[in-house]
Amino acid sequence: MIRFIPVIRVVSLLLLIISLFMLAPLGIAIYNGNAESARSFGLTIVFTAVFCSVLWRLTKSKNSLGLRTREGFLLVTASWIAASAVGAVPFVLSGAIPSYTDAFFETISGFTTTGASTLISIETLPRSFLFWRSLTHWLGGMGIVVLTVAILPFLGVGGVQLVRAESPGPTLDKMAPKITQTAKILWFLYLGFTVLETVLLMAGGMSLFDALTHTFGTLATGGFSPRDASIGAYNSGFIDWVITAFMIIAGTNFGIFYKLLRGDLKDISRNTEFKTYVFVIASSVLIITLVLLKVYGDFGTSLRYAGFQAISIITTTGFATADFDMWPMAAKGMLLLLMFVGGCSGSTGGGPKVIRVVTLIKLAFKEMRYMSRPRGIFRVHINGEPVKKNLLYSVSGFFVLYFLCLLFVTAVVSFFGAADIATAFSTALATVGNIGPGFGLIGPTMNYAFYPPLVKWVLSFAMLAGRLEVYTVLILLTPSFWRRA
Amino acid sequence: MIRFIPVIRVVSLLLLIISLFMLAPLGIAIYNGNAESARSFGLTIVFTAVFCSVLWRLTKSKNSLGLRTREGFLLVTASWIAASAVGAVPFVLSGAIPSYTDAFFETISGFTTTGASTLISIETLPRSFLFWRSLTHWLGGMGIVVLTVAILPFLGVGGVQLVRAESPGPTLDKMAPKITQTAKILWFLYLGFTVLETVLLMAGGMSLFDALTHTFGTLATGGFSPRDASIGAYNSGFIDWVITAFMIIAGTNFGIFYKLLRGDLKDISRNTEFKTYVFVIASSVLIITLVLLKVYGDFGTSLRYAGFQAISIITTTGFATADFDMWPMAAKGMLLLLMFVGGCSGSTGGGPKVIRVVTLIKLAFKEMRYMSRPRGIFRVHINGEPVKKNLLYSVSGFFVLYFLCLLFVTAVVSFFGAADIATAFSTALATVGNIGPGFGLIGPTMNYAFYPPLVKWVLSFAMLAGRLEVYTVLILLTPSFWRRA
Repeated sequence: MIRFIPVIRVVSLLLLIISLFMLAPLGIAIYNGNAESARSFGLTIVFTAVFCSVLWRLTKSKNSLGLRTREGFLLVTASWIAASAVGAVPFVLSGAIPSYTDAFFETISGFTTTGASTLISIETLPRSFLFWRSLTHWLGGMGIVVLTVAILPFLGVGGVQLVRAESPGPTLDKMAPKITQTAKILWFLYLGFTVLETVLLMAGGMSLFDALTHTFGTLATGGFSPRDASIGAYNSGFIDWVITAFMIIAGTNFGIFYKLLRGDLKDISRNTEFKTYVFVIASSVLIITLVLLKVYGDFGTSLRYAGFQAISIITTTGFATADFDMWPMAAKGMLLLLMFVGGCSGSTGGGPKVIRVVTLIKLAFKEMRYMSRPRGIFRVHINGEPVKKNLLYSVSGFFVLYFLCLLFVTAVVSFFGAADIATAFSTALATVGNIGPGFGLIGPTMNYAFYPPLVKWVLSFAMLAGRLEVYTVLILLTPSFWRRA
Repeated sequence: MIRFIPVIRVVSLLLLIISLFMLAPLGIAIYNGNAESARSFGLTIVFTAVFCSVLWRLTKSKNSLGLRTREGFLLVTASWIAASAVGAVPFVLSGAIPSYTDAFFETISGFTTTGASTLISIETLPRSFLFWRSLTHWLGGMGIVVLTVAILPFLGVGGVQLVRAESPGPTLDKMAPKITQTAKILWFLYLGFTVLETVLLMAGGMSLFDALTHTFGTLATGGFSPRDASIGAYNSGFIDWVITAFMIIAGTNFGIFYKLLRGDLKDISRNTEFKTYVFVIASSVLIITLVLLKVYGDFGTSLRYAGFQAISIITTTGFATADFDMWPMAAKGMLLLLMFVGGCSGSTGGGPKVIRVVTLIKLAFKEMRYMSRPRGIFRVHINGEPVKKNLLYSVSGFFVLYFLCLLFVTAVVSFFGAADIATAFSTALATVGNIGPGFGLIGPTMNYAFYPPLVKWVLSFAMLAGRLEVYTVLILLTPSFWRRA
């Protein structure tokens, strides 16, 4: 049986943390003298804090902690919906985004690090809201539940389940014996990279505000920019390359950096996913660069734009320095392929993840070898070791559900969204894959404003399903989840 | 080690059979007094017959029969390529299709029952060629190797492997203890339906020629029509419904009809794939009919056009009575979904096959139940029985390879084909899925003429890979296939 009390209890705690983070945009609003914005954030913070504190007290009971596996899935999904529901309120209160549908879409797009926006003009938004938008990226990137586990270790036994339900990838790298330690290591690495990128972007000429918001968007593989022209607004090779480098970092399994810090180079050289990730990036950037030679003329410029856009897509960031929807078909085709890959497991990237793609391709080749020699015994190897059967099933199942989500979203968008099929499918890819921009009507210079409310709600849940790797959300829709054991 | 001699031997035998079937268009050419066409078919028949007879004699050796599994894959793939290569010759000799690339494309499109054409005007082709085009459908529909096994039982041991390598679907229904008997039953059912549909179409007002060619196109789920406007040219409700009914038959597992003839109704009612096939058809036709109400006005007309087009797509036939590319997005979205399903295993339909889609969806739901209750034991059931693990792997592997083929073809078409992404992807779906028409530049009123030669060759092999269910063709590209055991 699912126990709702402990779930409500932890969600209220998590909302308290979210409301604390709203103090940052509140501070900016006060600093900038924007009373309207300050009032909206202030009211939201006070009401959330009071309401959640009351809930926290009311739900106090002996067996409230030590969550079960199934309760973990419910808790994580509920947390993300609750965080987005509350995070959207200030937008509506201040009138920055008058429609709650649009505000919820924008906020869940932020938390899920999708970066899809319904804003037609971004720069007209007050700076406090631009900051909040980017901050949702940063919080969602490493995971709001992981954060809760990291700073509140007393959640106890259920922690592993929670982190597993929220973390990208089919397996969870335990870096430390305790899950709270792992969560702490992840967030420390994340903080370190945040400081580093902010400093470098400021060195490239950005203001602190721009550097910080873009860092949030980069490291979370989010894609929200406070500028209408995204990174293209700066027209700086240095800034492009810094962000390109940090997008690669954000799409890498953070376990790799931990091993690097510990000098464990041998383990990195054996990591199938990381090697594939590097290979896919290198080869796709090279191909796109060659295609773009006839657009940009010289190799350096082509490499700069190819690298930025390709890495922005594979890591599912969604920043842009060029309108890739206007590129030659060959370059668009490569980007389309990258949309089916995504970042590494244990990174902040979305999409199906490199490890799953590799596992599935290896499974297919194993099957081909098996057909050639039905009496032979063949195994799928990852990181030099044979993969367990259960993982193969779970990866296969993942792709089915992922694909069903894509088809469902494509169908809804083409049914109710008045979009052509290319736009509809690329909307599905861009939301379920947490990428943001796609092709056609949702190209890098476009936005999601034109979709009717129903489509926006479906896309909101598509982004959530994508961020929580489909299973965590869809499992709640199965009857067996709610049935007694 | 692969032994080439017996492979060449059987291929030359198969080409002999193909050249015998060319006597039909030769007869038509003579009857119509078209000397040019008669000469082209005559020359091709004589040269093929002489050349293959010589090969057959030269390759005579003791251990020439009893093919091994791997040799079976090579044999089947080689047979289809050889049949298409020879079948294309008369088109070029007569000048009906001057380019060999186009002629090969047209012929392999025929044999694989795709129905994609490079002809801008179909009706200007001599009738002998129109007949040959449709006859390739009919031969390829039930399988040219299956035919060879049926009429030449002395192929012996390798027969099961060959039929398995050519038959659609992950498993082979053995209807009789001997594979040659199964092959015979299949071809007799096929012949019976051919006679039945031809008679019905003639009753609907078609000439014998039109009735026969359209019957070939229907029962093979092919799609070639001797008319420029396809079935729409007749504008007859009766003809539409007859063809709709026979498309459903063609997309059904022929084992179902065998069981029906034997009165084995209980087995049919337990058949997961058949029930799903009926459900998918009924629900998709209903939805599209409702969408089309605003296009065609009344329910009857909407049902007629929705039913014809939806069933043409799901069975991968490709006949058209309406330009579905001009339909509302909702209807197009549904058709797009159907393109990912295809016919039943053991039918003449293409695509991934209903059984694989069902198995994979059940696998995904099993995984979700497993995640809810990690200690529970869950199994995938098909036809009321648990599915073996190896089948789950093979189905998963199939979808990976199928999807990789789609992506590869999309990439090639967008690289070299100067088509937009929607057209490129729908070209991939329409060729690998053996459907024929798609959306955009290859919509139902369009053709494949505009693609450059390189793209046409890649599409030719895409059609072959699709017809032989990906594994049989792709396996030849793996090094382990050619390596000694």
